[in-house]
Amino acid sequence: MSADTRFQEAATALGYSFEGELKVGGNYVPLVRDGTTLYISGQVPRVGSTVLVTGRVGEEVSLAQAQLAAKVCAMRALALLQRELGSLENVRQVLRVTVFTQSAAAFTQQSEVADAASELLHTVLGEPGKHTRTSVGVYQLPKNASVELDLIASARL
Amino acid sequence: MSADTRFQEAATALGYSFEGELKVGGNYVPLVRDGTTLYISGQVPRVGSTVLVTGRVGEEVSLAQAQLAAKVCAMRALALLQRELGSLENVRQVLRVTVFTQSAAAFTQQSEVADAASELLHTVLGEPGKHTRTSVGVYQLPKNASVELDLIASARL
Amino acid sequence: MSADTRFQEAATALGYSFEGELKVGGNYVPLVRDGTTLYISGQVPRVGSTVLVTGRVGEEVSLAQAQLAAKVCAMRALALLQRELGSLENVRQVLRVTVFTQSAAAFTQQSEVADAASELLHTVLGEPGKHTRTSVGVYQLPKNASVELDLIASARL
Repeated sequence: MSADTRFQEAATALGYSFEGELKVGGNYVPLVRDGTTLYISGQVPRVGSTVLVTGRVGEEVSLAQAQLAAKVCAMRALALLQRELGSLENVRQVLRVTVFTQSAAAFTQQSEVADAASELLHTVLGEPGKHTRTSVGVYQLPKNASVELDLIASARL
Repeated sequence: MSADTRFQEAATALGYSFEGELKVGGNYVPLVRDGTTLYISGQVPRVGSTVLVTGRVGEEVSLAQAQLAAKVCAMRALALLQRELGSLENVRQVLRVTVFTQSAAAFTQQSEVADAASELLHTVLGEPGKHTRTSVGVYQLPKNASVELDLIASARL
Repeated sequence: MSADTRFQEAATALGYSFEGELKVGGNYVPLVRDGTTLYISGQVPRVGSTVLVTGRVGEEVSLAQAQLAAKVCAMRALALLQRELGSLENVRQVLRVTVFTQSAAAFTQQSEVADAASELLHTVLGEPGKHTRTSVGVYQLPKNASVELDLIASARL
């Protein structure tokens, strides 16, 4: 089964489509390619024009909701890679993922939030989905998003 | 009109000079080059030895002031690129910009703050100024700066 | 004296061993290599299974304790580079270091915290230890760590 098929299965499992325009909120671009290196802009858990999960994790938002948010962010990043490369089979490696969680003062499960994104990347991409990761708890995020994720990946060619 | 001329015009429009020493606050360097990739250290809105905009955005600091801060950070990054490369015409592409805004608990316009930096990069550099971006709201920044910006760019050679 | 010897001296001076497993907290890897570029996951000040320094800097945690935390994070990153490359002599350059400090609302010495890591990198690696740096104050970190550090480095070959 190809990474693209697994991506479609993950979208179906989440119940969201990632086929429409992947809007960015400002004067920049969602993806830049430099040789074989691909930089993806910070993704919030937006589907269409709606940010699905907003608010402070550990207060208004549960760990499970934050994990859903992290998955949606990761799916957006995968959708951008797929459009750029034609197929997710052309991802050589995810190099770096940074996950920012809008956190309550005492919420310390940022790694558990990010795990949901990491697992999804591994499920869809297999070995090329293994990555380095940094997880931090921030005070706010654009549009009150609960989670934001960016990444750097390499392409096979 | 060259990117260097547009840089000078942007400095004049802001009313600040970026010709002096661009101090860094600690035991590190402002720019490292690795092949054609250029890493720029996090820039706060400092001109000379003064951090121009300090305090929490959405509380003590307005969106407009934070946008000014973001522009000054971006100008410092451009000044560093110009010194390294001789001319801003030698910037091939800005690859990644990260903008950290010291935010009030309910301030969610981090993208609008970062837009000021993104627009300036595009105005000065043209197409090579288009970049991927991550905007987050943090709890504090060095020297109580309202905004901090770092970036990665590529050089033509 | 080699960088590896200086690394061992730094470990002795800190009073900790970095020889055991360097655990990561989730479904990702501590290091990814892409050509000559090495990405290191975010490191918290963990020795064995204990996070040595936890809590909010400027409130529960002093600047000196946070600096110790930053050094331990940097030692972990160095240990990962050493294992990957065989010797720290094979580090060509540290390109980018990002230091996240779990900060009190009014704590603005994030650069001073990060300086401890920067100095250690320079002490152990010499010139190749010079790097670009971004220091920010965040609201929380995984496992209530006081400091988290990630980095990108290049290898000699």
